[in-house]
Amino acid sequence: MKRIISIRSYGVKLGSTGNRFVITGKGVDKQTIPALDISEIILYGKAINITTSAILLAIKNQIPIFFMNRYGRPYSMISPIVASGTISTKRAQYSALNDRRGFELARAFIYGKMKNQERLLRLRANSERYDRAVQIRMYADNIAKLADSLLNIEYDGHYNETRAKIMRLEAEAARDNYWKGFALLLPDGFIFEKREHRHARDPVNILLNYGYGFLLTRVINAIIISGLDIHAGFLHADRAGRESLALDLIEEFRQPVVDITILKMLRLKELKRDEILEVDDSNNVRLSKGTLHKVINSLKERLEHRSDMYSIEDRIVEQARDVARFLRGEITEYKPFII
Amino acid sequence: MKRIISIRSYGVKLGSTGNRFVITGKGVDKQTIPALDISEIILYGKAINITTSAILLAIKNQIPIFFMNRYGRPYSMISPIVASGTISTKRAQYSALNDRRGFELARAFIYGKMKNQERLLRLRANSERYDRAVQIRMYADNIAKLADSLLNIEYDGHYNETRAKIMRLEAEAARDNYWKGFALLLPDGFIFEKREHRHARDPVNILLNYGYGFLLTRVINAIIISGLDIHAGFLHADRAGRESLALDLIEEFRQPVVDITILKMLRLKELKRDEILEVDDSNNVRLSKGTLHKVINSLKERLEHRSDMYSIEDRIVEQARDVARFLRGEITEYKPFII
Repeated sequence: MKRIISIRSYGVKLGSTGNRFVITGKGVDKQTIPALDISEIILYGKAINITTSAILLAIKNQIPIFFMNRYGRPYSMISPIVASGTISTKRAQYSALNDRRGFELARAFIYGKMKNQERLLRLRANSERYDRAVQIRMYADNIAKLADSLLNIEYDGHYNETRAKIMRLEAEAARDNYWKGFALLLPDGFIFEKREHRHARDPVNILLNYGYGFLLTRVINAIIISGLDIHAGFLHADRAGRESLALDLIEEFRQPVVDITILKMLRLKELKRDEILEVDDSNNVRLSKGTLHKVINSLKERLEHRSDMYSIEDRIVEQARDVARFLRGEITEYKPFII
Repeated sequence: MKRIISIRSYGVKLGSTGNRFVITGKGVDKQTIPALDISEIILYGKAINITTSAILLAIKNQIPIFFMNRYGRPYSMISPIVASGTISTKRAQYSALNDRRGFELARAFIYGKMKNQERLLRLRANSERYDRAVQIRMYADNIAKLADSLLNIEYDGHYNETRAKIMRLEAEAARDNYWKGFALLLPDGFIFEKREHRHARDPVNILLNYGYGFLLTRVINAIIISGLDIHAGFLHADRAGRESLALDLIEEFRQPVVDITILKMLRLKELKRDEILEVDDSNNVRLSKGTLHKVINSLKERLEHRSDMYSIEDRIVEQARDVARFLRGEITEYKPFII
């Protein structure tokens, strides 16, 4: 199984010698790792050095390097100037913007997300006290109904209006049902009022943000491998210039990869409430280094675990390829990944 | 006028503090440069360190970072995950692949290149001895005829066949005429048998390769600013995954930017024949550090020089925008840049 190089510590240097990466720095044991063993490099924070030879080695081995901001979200990546795949896939992608294929993909992504929200709540409700379980199942039932409504949306040629309908149902499922059910599943001592992105200061939101940021690097990767353009999305189509297609495809993987893992870690007390966060020099709240490594390792395990032939990691690539196949007309339906 | 940070030396480190880049390293005077003063960062070779804070600072200021291989060609760049521009331009670009618009662009790029080849030869022939001047003007005449033939190519709906015709004329102009005339313009002591890319070991080809590599970073930049995809080209369409559109657009700028500058430097003896090249640790021939800096500075001067309102640098961006406007249907004709 390939490894991820994930570096957070101040002053650490990532270099290379021959076909190996070399990690050095004060307070760090020197590590030498063959490039063949690495799938991805993730650099968190501001004070890490990387050499041009390490960048060249990564590019030669098609290892993406992601730079993550202090919210745990990728803000940049190093890409080879030579892109993978042919332009015919991107061409199909662009021609599908605002047509029925785009609509069907947008709906499928959110349908997958809703079904996964529903299933996560039902699954976890079983281990809850009776009254709480009833309430959680009620949220799951509501989401199931919203998923049905989603399938009833017809495409009438007005792309943006139809997309807005999908987004409204999505918001209702998430805000009014899923996250309320999710809050009930948290162990005592964790308060979760609502999902917050950038300026979250509570442990659960910050854990989710880092988790989604990590997952996003995998989704971006899968999209690039499939020859698609990460910037031309179908659901998040209005966010010009954003990594819209990655934000589309991530939807069906949020619950099965991140939420389920974070919830498990909190419920099993793998993360201790007072040790999750730390305050950096600029008084920003962020994930502590120890927690970051635990979370990334757990997410990596989750991604690589094989229940049948395929790991979820394989499935992310497979789903991205299905998006490409659907756009090129090689398959007639795109089926989202559902747990 | 904004500066380029161009680093070649072994062990130099590019860091940052606040809104400034900091260059340090043994044998190098520490430099601190405000990010606002920088237009581009170019890192040559293998043993340069860059910190994640410098990368973040560059991204915040939309300063691209290019990594150049030992042939002086960009092999990678750091791009923000958020792309510039909207997807409508890329969409128009993809829909134009293999149609009349693509054909017209491909022809215009090569027409511009041929006219610039012709003009450079005619201009420089004036300062040559009579018999040599006659020969150079003959090559210029031939290129002018080939440019006329180019305009006579009709688009008959067979994209690849028509493109192959353009490429044949282009090869005839370059190989059989332009480079032969160019060789006659070189000062004594420089032998130039033919254009060579990757494995060139002679000073003139190596100088041209570095020059084109540097120019390519500017063209890539202009294309990204204009919201176009560097990978979907019209002329170099068959090179899947390459930076095809950049290779298309660079054609009309090769002579006016690089050839003219290199020729001038050689003729004015700004570059001494025995000091141009050096041999690195792996026995590869490359441009010496001193020459690299001289060449980049001269090219930069050439790009920024204003003969009328616009510098050539401005014109590269303007031409890329014209490609975008033409593809979106806002202008009906694309006119190449001709000296």
